[in-house]
Amino acid sequence: MKSYAKLIAEMKEIALIGSIGAVLGYDERTALPPKGTEHRSNQSAFIAKMVHEKFTTKAVGELLKEAAEETKALPADSTEATNVRQLKKRYDRSTKLPTALVEALSKAIVIGEAAWAGARKSDDFEAFAPYLNTMLDLKKQEIECYGYTTEPYDALLEDYEPGMTAAELRNVFEGLRGPLVELIGRITSSGKVAPLEILERNYPAELQTNFCKIAAAAVGFDFEAGRLDISVHPFCSGVGPGDTRMTTRYDVNYFGDAFFGTLHESGHALYDQGLPDEHFGTPCGEAVSLGIHESQSRMWENLVGRSESFWKFMLPKAREVFGSTLTGVSDAQWLWAVNDVRPSHIRVEADEATYNLHVLLRFEMETAILSGQMAIKDLPGEWNSRMAKYLGLKVPDNARGCLQDVHWSAGLMGYFPTYTLGNLYAAQFFVQARKDLGDLDAMFARGEFAPLLGWLRKNIHGHGQRFTAKELVQRITGKPLSHDALMTHLSAKAKQFYGV
Amino acid sequence: MKSYAKLIAEMKEIALIGSIGAVLGYDERTALPPKGTEHRSNQSAFIAKMVHEKFTTKAVGELLKEAAEETKALPADSTEATNVRQLKKRYDRSTKLPTALVEALSKAIVIGEAAWAGARKSDDFEAFAPYLNTMLDLKKQEIECYGYTTEPYDALLEDYEPGMTAAELRNVFEGLRGPLVELIGRITSSGKVAPLEILERNYPAELQTNFCKIAAAAVGFDFEAGRLDISVHPFCSGVGPGDTRMTTRYDVNYFGDAFFGTLHESGHALYDQGLPDEHFGTPCGEAVSLGIHESQSRMWENLVGRSESFWKFMLPKAREVFGSTLTGVSDAQWLWAVNDVRPSHIRVEADEATYNLHVLLRFEMETAILSGQMAIKDLPGEWNSRMAKYLGLKVPDNARGCLQDVHWSAGLMGYFPTYTLGNLYAAQFFVQARKDLGDLDAMFARGEFAPLLGWLRKNIHGHGQRFTAKELVQRITGKPLSHDALMTHLSAKAKQFYGV
Repeated sequence: MKSYAKLIAEMKEIALIGSIGAVLGYDERTALPPKGTEHRSNQSAFIAKMVHEKFTTKAVGELLKEAAEETKALPADSTEATNVRQLKKRYDRSTKLPTALVEALSKAIVIGEAAWAGARKSDDFEAFAPYLNTMLDLKKQEIECYGYTTEPYDALLEDYEPGMTAAELRNVFEGLRGPLVELIGRITSSGKVAPLEILERNYPAELQTNFCKIAAAAVGFDFEAGRLDISVHPFCSGVGPGDTRMTTRYDVNYFGDAFFGTLHESGHALYDQGLPDEHFGTPCGEAVSLGIHESQSRMWENLVGRSESFWKFMLPKAREVFGSTLTGVSDAQWLWAVNDVRPSHIRVEADEATYNLHVLLRFEMETAILSGQMAIKDLPGEWNSRMAKYLGLKVPDNARGCLQDVHWSAGLMGYFPTYTLGNLYAAQFFVQARKDLGDLDAMFARGEFAPLLGWLRKNIHGHGQRFTAKELVQRITGKPLSHDALMTHLSAKAKQFYGV
Repeated sequence: MKSYAKLIAEMKEIALIGSIGAVLGYDERTALPPKGTEHRSNQSAFIAKMVHEKFTTKAVGELLKEAAEETKALPADSTEATNVRQLKKRYDRSTKLPTALVEALSKAIVIGEAAWAGARKSDDFEAFAPYLNTMLDLKKQEIECYGYTTEPYDALLEDYEPGMTAAELRNVFEGLRGPLVELIGRITSSGKVAPLEILERNYPAELQTNFCKIAAAAVGFDFEAGRLDISVHPFCSGVGPGDTRMTTRYDVNYFGDAFFGTLHESGHALYDQGLPDEHFGTPCGEAVSLGIHESQSRMWENLVGRSESFWKFMLPKAREVFGSTLTGVSDAQWLWAVNDVRPSHIRVEADEATYNLHVLLRFEMETAILSGQMAIKDLPGEWNSRMAKYLGLKVPDNARGCLQDVHWSAGLMGYFPTYTLGNLYAAQFFVQARKDLGDLDAMFARGEFAPLLGWLRKNIHGHGQRFTAKELVQRITGKPLSHDALMTHLSAKAKQFYGV
């Protein structure tokens, strides 16, 4: 397997270079002085170009062909077959776009994001529409280059959730939509309001930092192999073996932002820290999909981090750290506050339940626009009517409506579904983990999160890309993805806190 | 000038890559999680190799030849002539060492540093001697490759203080030694002891950070184009245009370390921030020498930062920041405390005056060893007898004697003199700045440091490598380097605080 070995060596070098780009990116968002922006963009562009050029050479194409020949008799989930299969897919995809289109897309993203930022600020959809139109044209060209079997949208999904189709998504999402709209309607009608004031008291940033680090370490984040820093937009970056970093941001008058943000990023980080180091730089050392990645963040943020048992362990620690801030707060009040469900306009501020309707709405809009069933000019109207139908909300302006997200301006069509996929995967995995591991709640209440993490490592993290998301779900839970587990989870919470 | 243009484009790309290495290095020393060390060393090695390979190609050699032809009629201090001349020197030097020697040296440095760390810990010079011997052999081979006119040591000096010779150094250093030994002897005999207890009170790290930033900003460090962070060994790194970073470290029971460390690094940083951005990546945008660089750090740390006028401005601010910590401290006591002169064993902890004797001693030892006049086995004895002669101190063990510095184990022979050169240059420049700018003390007392910084920008920073250190001294001060200015400065301080 000489060609295979050569191929892997080349991929590891490319990944090493890419990981240098990750350091530049992390530093850019956590440390870069403002006047260093231009030089940093030159540094990052140099690295990105080198990675792209090294990967798309004819020589890599030849090595891939020879390696495919060398490994064709091996089982599909062997290291070698996995690496060759996945790299070939990536290579074919990255060589399908003509350079002119790649350049036009990069330019349209920069211009589009700027136009979007301006339009959102001045609440002016008309001003943004032409840019969205340009982006849409380019994405359609991209789709033609990639090709597709059933629906154009599938070609874009492949970047974020490989192997998933619009039809499959629609099937699961439509199963979820009805019951979820109905459940949220009942919660709203209950008239019960969680004691949110508790989370809006004074939480000094330094104490929040301490508490976030306690929680991240408790769930298993290895601070010897990572960091927690501050950035405007929280994120997680798996730089390379032994170096996985995440960020959060502190609002001294709101507990939830930094804390659940940290648990969320910890979920991503635990996935990155659980990928096998020896396979760094190859598909066997890389995450399956954005949806599976998101399932890890959502599991720790919501299924673990908002559970009664988690707070049995953590609330006494919170009382120690925050002292008088929590005076007079009962365990039950706290738990309800962190499990508040309430329709709201902004996706990124939405709770565990309503969040999914924000995503479903976006999925419906972007598939309709791409297939030509909806015109761009009708976007605001369609958006607002769906917000009314799904969440019972009147949208006050487009800035708090269809202009709120950067994604479309940045060409990220097909990305939104992965957020709800994460919730769905997480809920279905969690049911199975309970079956396999026994009384998880008793463990959480004692601060024992290692059994769950070990289960995730064994069943998900350790495999890299040996299995697709679909295969993983089937292997782990014995059935295909459905909305059942998530609805069961959300219904139980609704009953507990809102009595509906 | 086609070849010149090509050469410059190539150099700018190499510098861009090198600056990526600088980001990796900065992150390594300020942020890297421990388990990320191995991956980081792979990243840094990749960048270092690329920089070396791209610079030492035959193509660069050809471009240099052609560019020399194209620019030969231009004045020596023109941008083009400067760049070609300096690059040619660098190229010739970097292509003179055979790969085998370069590799042997890198290996010897890693092994040597580890051996040194162990030997210092166990105070075992015998254990270190063989490694020092190996390093010495390699340095002698290096010297043979580079060649020299008068003394082998000159070939090594070229890396740190280009154009300087051992003979010139010896001449200036010997002029300094006698009067300085005598002055320090008088200070010690005076029996007067500065009120050091003032600096050893409780200085909370957070308050020190605030105060250090106030001082750095006051002297002109642009925080929009840089940062101040924490690291074990303080340093300054000019990453690239708009991005100059420095570090310090906080001892809550000692004011001097972080504060004067920050002023010191600010001096380096002001030089880096003052280099012309448009010449980034070429000699016209780079510092002259380590000695000139050090003159900037020493000027702000000592000549400005320990002056009475500086503290007229800063002490009221210190009283505000540190509150009760400074209760009962008079202006005069504070000023004496930060101007304490006292012989001590460790160079890096030495004061402004005695520091130079630590350096002279090392210069004498390393030149003697390289010329064969001294054997390695005699190093401890020679060291200790000089410490007695120069500073009146008995050396308790080699860990606090000839094993205290990492430099020799890392092959940095020829580096030490640049520290005292910095003090000498700084003092001589400062005399001239006073002549050119008028009452600097009145300005400092009002917090006006911009005139001095502007003077340094105009006379030093802005030139890049257009002039050698020697030329700069002559141009700026109208005479060659001598010990006069430094001795005058130190004598005045001795008179003021010790009455001698």
